[in-house]
Amino acid sequence: MTPGNMLIAQSGGPSMVINQSLVGAVLAAREAPIIGQIYGARHGIKGIIEENLVDLRAPSRKELELVAATPSSALGSIRRKPTGEDCAAIFRSLRARGVRFFFYIGGNDSAETVHIIYQEAKRARVDLACFHIPKTIDNDLRENDHTPGYGSAARFVASAILGDNLDNRALGGVKIDVIMGRHAGFLTAASALARVCPDDGPHLIYLPERPFSLDRFAADVKRVVARVGRCVVAVSEGIADADGKPIVSAFITETDSHGNAQLSGTGALGDLLARVIKERTGITRVRADTFGYLQRSFPGVVSETDAREARLVGAAAVSAAIEGRHASGSVAIKRKACRAYAVRFEIVPLRAVARHTRHMPTAFINKTGNNVTQAFLDYASPLVGPLPPVGRFVDC
Amino acid sequence: MTPGNMLIAQSGGPSMVINQSLVGAVLAAREAPIIGQIYGARHGIKGIIEENLVDLRAPSRKELELVAATPSSALGSIRRKPTGEDCAAIFRSLRARGVRFFFYIGGNDSAETVHIIYQEAKRARVDLACFHIPKTIDNDLRENDHTPGYGSAARFVASAILGDNLDNRALGGVKIDVIMGRHAGFLTAASALARVCPDDGPHLIYLPERPFSLDRFAADVKRVVARVGRCVVAVSEGIADADGKPIVSAFITETDSHGNAQLSGTGALGDLLARVIKERTGITRVRADTFGYLQRSFPGVVSETDAREARLVGAAAVSAAIEGRHASGSVAIKRKACRAYAVRFEIVPLRAVARHTRHMPTAFINKTGNNVTQAFLDYASPLVGPLPPVGRFVDC
Repeated sequence: MTPGNMLIAQSGGPSMVINQSLVGAVLAAREAPIIGQIYGARHGIKGIIEENLVDLRAPSRKELELVAATPSSALGSIRRKPTGEDCAAIFRSLRARGVRFFFYIGGNDSAETVHIIYQEAKRARVDLACFHIPKTIDNDLRENDHTPGYGSAARFVASAILGDNLDNRALGGVKIDVIMGRHAGFLTAASALARVCPDDGPHLIYLPERPFSLDRFAADVKRVVARVGRCVVAVSEGIADADGKPIVSAFITETDSHGNAQLSGTGALGDLLARVIKERTGITRVRADTFGYLQRSFPGVVSETDAREARLVGAAAVSAAIEGRHASGSVAIKRKACRAYAVRFEIVPLRAVARHTRHMPTAFINKTGNNVTQAFLDYASPLVGPLPPVGRFVDC
Repeated sequence: MTPGNMLIAQSGGPSMVINQSLVGAVLAAREAPIIGQIYGARHGIKGIIEENLVDLRAPSRKELELVAATPSSALGSIRRKPTGEDCAAIFRSLRARGVRFFFYIGGNDSAETVHIIYQEAKRARVDLACFHIPKTIDNDLRENDHTPGYGSAARFVASAILGDNLDNRALGGVKIDVIMGRHAGFLTAASALARVCPDDGPHLIYLPERPFSLDRFAADVKRVVARVGRCVVAVSEGIADADGKPIVSAFITETDSHGNAQLSGTGALGDLLARVIKERTGITRVRADTFGYLQRSFPGVVSETDAREARLVGAAAVSAAIEGRHASGSVAIKRKACRAYAVRFEIVPLRAVARHTRHMPTAFINKTGNNVTQAFLDYASPLVGPLPPVGRFVDC
């Protein structure tokens, strides 16, 4: 294998553990004799094009560990699909620095970016190993049992719902919580991990995988209130009607260059759903919260499993590139079939991950489409870890 | 002092540490020979009237400690100002159970409730010691240096802004975070504790204590973006224009029996402010999050100082009632004048606390009205405790 320099960058929405992957890759690269300089590009491919680079051999191990434990993308991020012109600029920049190993940490759009760069590099006869390091709180990458970032975001969601259920129990009424997830309901589904007693919320869970109807929603809430005296609802920002039209679409005006609509960073869906419940059920105390960006950036709420695996996928990408059996690929997390939770890492083709979205399997959603199954709880529980214990005066 | 039974209840918005006060009072009462039965009423005065009571001598110490560490009001809560009829029903219920000591944990509306009950009891010649135990995440009780619940909610806000600032640093644009606080800006101000480096957000802080102008807001954001390249804004849900009219008032339809408008549980203000910035500045990436009820209920994000003091004010109320020097009162937290942070507790008259709202002192707000001062940071820092450390590749 020819020695060379390496460049790594981060792309797409940040997560609580995306810097673990960065540090995992950097530490593995520092131990590899084949790798010379280690460059970090600021704000993804923009940093490569604009030659806005960081020397990642400079920070001490202690400094790197502090970065690893810090939320959000330490190198900065971007949402940008590279054009042919971008690729030419990228190759000029990489060639000038003798970069032969390229790593990009992100979701399926970032995998697409790596795929485009790899294809263009082949065409332009640029010798460049291109690897995608998975990251997405949405947990929607194909080929993966789950993705780094999901466990910690799911831990935030489950913790928030645990507290919010207690708040709702104290003051009553209906509480609607809008949770991130454009096409995949994994994060919203994680709210179910908050349940301790049979009367605990979330009492209803709505996912983008099932058509959402305002009529059924209002009827569901009425039924829960009649039974429990209150209702906590976890709903994905991406819920859509039977024609696939997002419920919040009336409020959407903005899309990125990958064609994704902006669903987060607005309280519109929660307010709409609260208004519907007030109007159709006559219940007066109806509140909606949209958990928003805290889900991917709140410091300190980390799943230990997630942090550990995020570190390992970064290292696995560097190992694969050094080994040289693949010139490109994405690191995928596979769950072992053994009884206790365990994973292994596998290099899969970029095209298998790029662009595609993985959805919640049917076995994870109940028949009525307003709850998750035990199979989902069994799947998600080891990824999230144990939640804070709850004290109450009356037994379940 | 005549022996007698005791009743305790919780009222108003829950907090992360309101159960610490409950458990502090119960444990103190269990050690007092003068106190017989210890009743907890469910959902405040409603539980007294409807005789929905819990025996608080029954739980083990371990069970009580688990409740103490659990967010939200374990006995349930209510927002209800007692009528003359309510008081008569309350006295019937208390007399039937030989209750001579009454404790109510809550904010200024709850203090008003205690005051009403105490006045009515005197008039009806009911022998009842009435004590208010302070709680409010808004930190707006008069006579108090600060209130139990504030430190933990402030810790949530500061942590959230710390993570959100890193998120904004990664992807750029303008981020607006709407924080709880109807008339007092203490909670929004706590966002300033998240700053580590000079370029860190929140870059702008808007409080209900200063008139809010959309024009000035847009100009402020433009100036910050020109300087830092991005902008994180912390804004109180209670911001109002020069006439005192809440900015969000166009969306408000609901008030409680104390006359308070519902400001939380809706994303309307954040969405309005984001729209204004998009329209007036031409910046495309503008997002708004409303932190909502997580601020008072998120499990595990607790200030140790806050938890300890919340426990102690509960015990202090019971001590004062047993001692018998006052027949009624509210426990107030006073900060000692010594260099290191220390507090003492004092019994103050109910009428000094009831209904009134304490605001941010002028010394805590900068002249322009869009930031806090060092004096505020010195005030709030020991209440919140140290935040998670932040790693970055470039020094401040």
